[in-house]
Amino acid sequence: MADLELMRELQIASESKIVMLVIDGLGGLPMEPGGPTELEAARTPNLDHLAARGLCGLSVPIGPGITPGSGPAHLALFGYDPLKYEIGRGVLEALGIGFDLHDEDVAARGNFCTVDEKGLITDRRAGRIPTEKNVELVKLLRGIKLSGVHIFVETVKEYRFVLVLRGEGLEGGLTETDPQQLGVPPLPVEALVPEAERTAQLFNQWIAQARKILADQRPANMVNLRGLAKNPGLPSMEEVYGLRSAAIASYPMYRGVAKLLGMDVLDTGEALEEEVETLQAHFADYDFFFVHVKKTDSAGEDGDFERKVSIIEHVDELVPAILDLKPEVLIVTSDHSTPALLRLHSWHPVPTLLHSRYCRADQTDEFSERGCSRGALGRFPAVDLMPLAMANTLRLAKYGA
Amino acid sequence: MADLELMRELQIASESKIVMLVIDGLGGLPMEPGGPTELEAARTPNLDHLAARGLCGLSVPIGPGITPGSGPAHLALFGYDPLKYEIGRGVLEALGIGFDLHDEDVAARGNFCTVDEKGLITDRRAGRIPTEKNVELVKLLRGIKLSGVHIFVETVKEYRFVLVLRGEGLEGGLTETDPQQLGVPPLPVEALVPEAERTAQLFNQWIAQARKILADQRPANMVNLRGLAKNPGLPSMEEVYGLRSAAIASYPMYRGVAKLLGMDVLDTGEALEEEVETLQAHFADYDFFFVHVKKTDSAGEDGDFERKVSIIEHVDELVPAILDLKPEVLIVTSDHSTPALLRLHSWHPVPTLLHSRYCRADQTDEFSERGCSRGALGRFPAVDLMPLAMANTLRLAKYGA
Repeated sequence: MADLELMRELQIASESKIVMLVIDGLGGLPMEPGGPTELEAARTPNLDHLAARGLCGLSVPIGPGITPGSGPAHLALFGYDPLKYEIGRGVLEALGIGFDLHDEDVAARGNFCTVDEKGLITDRRAGRIPTEKNVELVKLLRGIKLSGVHIFVETVKEYRFVLVLRGEGLEGGLTETDPQQLGVPPLPVEALVPEAERTAQLFNQWIAQARKILADQRPANMVNLRGLAKNPGLPSMEEVYGLRSAAIASYPMYRGVAKLLGMDVLDTGEALEEEVETLQAHFADYDFFFVHVKKTDSAGEDGDFERKVSIIEHVDELVPAILDLKPEVLIVTSDHSTPALLRLHSWHPVPTLLHSRYCRADQTDEFSERGCSRGALGRFPAVDLMPLAMANTLRLAKYGA
Repeated sequence: MADLELMRELQIASESKIVMLVIDGLGGLPMEPGGPTELEAARTPNLDHLAARGLCGLSVPIGPGITPGSGPAHLALFGYDPLKYEIGRGVLEALGIGFDLHDEDVAARGNFCTVDEKGLITDRRAGRIPTEKNVELVKLLRGIKLSGVHIFVETVKEYRFVLVLRGEGLEGGLTETDPQQLGVPPLPVEALVPEAERTAQLFNQWIAQARKILADQRPANMVNLRGLAKNPGLPSMEEVYGLRSAAIASYPMYRGVAKLLGMDVLDTGEALEEEVETLQAHFADYDFFFVHVKKTDSAGEDGDFERKVSIIEHVDELVPAILDLKPEVLIVTSDHSTPALLRLHSWHPVPTLLHSRYCRADQTDEFSERGCSRGALGRFPAVDLMPLAMANTLRLAKYGA
């Protein structure tokens, strides 16, 4: 298991470059038993050639059988154990919509819900109201004022919003209001530590006002708050690894996670070609590049096997341009699987390759789920990738005499 | 993960023998991409035959990407988690030069350094002075007396020496003096626990006198002390596993680690044939034998691929003589990789095989990095080896009803 303390202790300076290409939701499943996965169906001569010269395996983002959300899955890729470094849902949602979260802020994920005349929950998602309705309701909720704090309410989508309280002396360590069952009322926010007492009261005051404002709305006549927390203040990639790090990602969520780890988030376009151009333009300026490809995941969530195949083939075409930059280490991996068959993130381990001069290539010559299952890395925790990248750029001193 | 408590609890008596043949620095890399490693280039019919009948895998000494020093790497082979059981550098250096460390001793690794007229460090290694100069300076430092303690100063090599304080009431839990940067003075030794207060003062008094004695020397006019600690008092192999254990190793470092774990360190010569003769002579007297081959590592550190190949071939020739003794378990492994390409210890996992009547042989028929990467043990933590050896000699009782 990776250990950030060990990385901090052993890291030494180097001029070498590490590129981590994250093809979101890359792992897949056959649509029919015995058939190919998306990656196996795709024609990927460049990735296959790289697999033949590299070290392959199947990475496990969180743990066996655990389907990761994007936040924890990316933390694991960057070597931060997601079971140890928890990020509140509120913080993740706020970062996900590009909200400029301050250190003093406490953020909560909000869900519109439906309650009956007794105040008991009848639908935890308020019939999945359309995003347009959410925007209207959020405007109403912005009318709430509380003394001593600034309040931000932001639409995410459908029944989801973000609530951020900003002010001095606010603290995390708070319970959630969602009882996660029907026929009972929302719970009050309670402080788990004495320092959070006032913050709990503020959230409860906000909820009481929201209840009044929404009383006549249908079906979204109430709210639940989940994951009420501050930015956990994770040690940065530079502190842990000594790596000047940059993120090339067009979606707010991934830019947010990168920011949380102190990466510089570079301006880039949505197209893969634009991301590669951004990489080329800044290649001299950083040690570590996180390059994120989103559309494979979206195609998987849409259940569109063929579209996912063709995006993978498009990524493959851009691999030579990345190799032309001669990064000392190139990792091709993903945060999790998103099989078109399931139309969801899944727990399946993720095809991964690491290429470097010192990687001790295995005999895998096909970048695929089957190929990677025969690789010398075996089935390994995703948090192992960063220590391997560090080692392969000769950035880690010997442990002990 | 091995757990010493579990071993203590489950161990049962047996007459079976375990031989662990440690070919130091065995793991390698191809000199050219696609070429063979040292082990793959070597002709090893006996080891290949053993691999065909045994269970193979790639062992990870400390963790992914972590390059181990010899001390921690050997602890792992003997089932002691090296991240949990830390041995101070002073103790390791003292053991490494064969110093007879007592339980009451506090040992420090000393480095000669250079300071300017203001006492600020200008070279942390004093220009890597030759060992002869070190011997001269150590003679001068032996003139230092402190009341109530015996002091030992011993040359290691170049700028490195060992300082041992012996006396009643000495304690570890001390900071190091090396600030690990230039332009600042050495730090004082500070006690991290109240019991170590007096020991800290003694070390600081010694340093003050050393400063005076070395003042007119160039370039080595000052010292730094690192890893000031006592022998950690690890539980012995006999306590943990119930194994009467013997070490057959000619180099002081490995004899030292074996002694730390309570093994009997047998007299032996440096030649492999002599080590095998020692094994034969004492085979009836012990349950566990650690047989250490040093020269593969030295060849790797010299960058001499061909010499490493020929030493591996020589080891292979002696395997039948070991098998003739009919040990119930024979493990062939290494503490770490030392690829001639890197001329250094490295992080790469280590080819390993375990042969016993009950090992459930896999389909690997070649003892090599590639062969072992296909083995049924997969990529596994080195600390798993001892529990497997214990199990394969039927020395572990069932866990739970």
